[in-house]
Amino acid sequence: MRAVLLVTLAAGLGLAQPADPGKPATTNVMGAEYPKIHADLSVTFRTKAPDAKKVQVDLGKPWDMERDGEGVWSVTIPPQVPGFHYYYLSIDGVRVSDPASRNFYGVSRESSGIEIPEAGADYSEIKDVPHGQVRNYRYYSKTVAGWRRAFVYTPPDYDTNLKARYPVLYLQHGGGEDETGWPNQGRVDIILDNLIAEKKAVPMIVVMDKGYALKPGEEIPQPPAAGQPRRPFFSRTFEEVVIDDLIPAVDGGFRTLTDRDHRAMTGLSMGGMQTFQITMAHLDKFAWIGGFSGSGGIMGGPFDAKTAYDGVLADAAAFNKRVKLVWIGIGTKEPERMYASVHSFHEALTQAGIRHVYYESPGTSHEWLTWRRDLNEFAPLLFR
Amino acid sequence: MRAVLLVTLAAGLGLAQPADPGKPATTNVMGAEYPKIHADLSVTFRTKAPDAKKVQVDLGKPWDMERDGEGVWSVTIPPQVPGFHYYYLSIDGVRVSDPASRNFYGVSRESSGIEIPEAGADYSEIKDVPHGQVRNYRYYSKTVAGWRRAFVYTPPDYDTNLKARYPVLYLQHGGGEDETGWPNQGRVDIILDNLIAEKKAVPMIVVMDKGYALKPGEEIPQPPAAGQPRRPFFSRTFEEVVIDDLIPAVDGGFRTLTDRDHRAMTGLSMGGMQTFQITMAHLDKFAWIGGFSGSGGIMGGPFDAKTAYDGVLADAAAFNKRVKLVWIGIGTKEPERMYASVHSFHEALTQAGIRHVYYESPGTSHEWLTWRRDLNEFAPLLFR
Repeated sequence: MRAVLLVTLAAGLGLAQPADPGKPATTNVMGAEYPKIHADLSVTFRTKAPDAKKVQVDLGKPWDMERDGEGVWSVTIPPQVPGFHYYYLSIDGVRVSDPASRNFYGVSRESSGIEIPEAGADYSEIKDVPHGQVRNYRYYSKTVAGWRRAFVYTPPDYDTNLKARYPVLYLQHGGGEDETGWPNQGRVDIILDNLIAEKKAVPMIVVMDKGYALKPGEEIPQPPAAGQPRRPFFSRTFEEVVIDDLIPAVDGGFRTLTDRDHRAMTGLSMGGMQTFQITMAHLDKFAWIGGFSGSGGIMGGPFDAKTAYDGVLADAAAFNKRVKLVWIGIGTKEPERMYASVHSFHEALTQAGIRHVYYESPGTSHEWLTWRRDLNEFAPLLFR
Repeated sequence: MRAVLLVTLAAGLGLAQPADPGKPATTNVMGAEYPKIHADLSVTFRTKAPDAKKVQVDLGKPWDMERDGEGVWSVTIPPQVPGFHYYYLSIDGVRVSDPASRNFYGVSRESSGIEIPEAGADYSEIKDVPHGQVRNYRYYSKTVAGWRRAFVYTPPDYDTNLKARYPVLYLQHGGGEDETGWPNQGRVDIILDNLIAEKKAVPMIVVMDKGYALKPGEEIPQPPAAGQPRRPFFSRTFEEVVIDDLIPAVDGGFRTLTDRDHRAMTGLSMGGMQTFQITMAHLDKFAWIGGFSGSGGIMGGPFDAKTAYDGVLADAAAFNKRVKLVWIGIGTKEPERMYASVHSFHEALTQAGIRHVYYESPGTSHEWLTWRRDLNEFAPLLFR
């Protein structure tokens, strides 16, 4: 009876009902039946809210949910792009997490997330291969006068190959996320485990810190208001933390190779911008540089390779000799402004004669599937 | 003006207003001003919900929030017991997480949490001492035919004292929680780091797995209906996982001491019950046993030391010689049934002549402050 009612409602809304019952998303909390993903990647959401007047699910855009006689609201939304998407419910206009979903720190808050499976892509699926570990690593930062926590991936043989020293990749999250992003949404250890098992990437340590840092008394920097001069909306304090506190702490606490030829940095979105800011100012410390949907020259505006980053790009031949890799990635379905800024930076580098790799993730937006693919493409090129 | 209004409203509700502005809770998401904790440990909650008809905050019990002219709802609730409390908002009758709070997996879902500071208690505060690591450890379970993840705390000297082998404590979360409970809500690494630094506890490895396990095709066991025979509402599959998969994986993957004299197990609530179920059936593997607000004989009903656990307690002298420690803890403010069941188990053990330590956490309920204190009391007694 309820099924009939739902079909009727859906027909009224012009939404097609999938033929199959669907499977609970892997991102649901233990025991939660909904959200369910159907074979065609359409998704049914359901939540109980007998006293609410209006309930929506927002996944990229808001979808009205329909109430049944018992106060259960549901909607089936059209097939979704594979990968990890943040989403939320709106209960009488209040944006809240779906109680049925695991939460992921993103968009500056805990957010519901749903993993839409990608057919045929197993690079980010757990396999029967040796597994590394993600460790919480507490270190003292003189810059912020307090303890900070980074996550550190150690490769599978780290605890057995005790004479080995490893190169290090510093890997940053995006704006509104934190150091939990890559271990949770990004599946960093699974991607690296798989690459290392297939000998596509060399065993490496990956360090993931929170890309925010404030000195005592320092205020959180605000994004520029409309019409104001563009500037990075993150504090430079994080740069000091990386250079003065984090790198020494990692080199002191792990069996790392400490020269610049064995140190890389990349990040997504804001983390990519931070990477270019930090590495270009410290080429004595980094020889491998990446930017996932965020790099140099982002946010539009003229980019002049002769003067940018205090002129380190001005002599292309010298830069190309000094820097082993510059790598830039973007999803083809990212918002136009994002795509344009990364693509135009790629073109500016090309014009300036700066050797680099440019990668487009087909069909993906400013989302974690783009960045997982980026990591899967970027990591194999490192430390060769 | 708004302050005056709030005071007026609060006066109308009979709630006293604290004199100080309060400080954002440490459990808030980055940048969130509310909830704020005042000097007297009263707490002000605030959330924006212009279109909602009724908003409450539920922390132990529901408190009505009051709407201002701009649709912002607030309430200041009376002084709270220190420690970590789960809480949630109710928006027009729908129970949701507070967008201003970090989420913690508990009560079978992501839940808001608030840390009320405990004056003078610094055993669970991060200090300038050497820090261990909490590592995500993936291992294959033949029992469930899949990969599982446990968190493993390694003590501060684990990566430098490479010849050392360590005793192991298996430490379980409660019902509706998971393996993230002890690292997040429980502050396990900070408590152990502090104990080890003060030489109050010996360096040990702590293993925290998810206390749920299902074989292929096995259904989630349901709690018994009212009037039905009492039985553990968790599957015995977890026992098989611990014995057949987890212990071998930990002994294979870490530098452990593998004899029973160097293996302990404890857990909170459901995890305590699981501990007694597992250890009593495998005394060849465990010599140290704990139960935090959950142990043997819980859920009321007669407990007969002669027949319980297949009679391993029947010969008290033999048991006391074989088992190095039985440790039972409970908070004095726990719900009457919880308190009574643990206390009566303590009395039954005493009557049966089973040597054990019984600890009461003053003023705390069935909550994480009880269990942090338990760990802080229990860990120093281990492996001596």
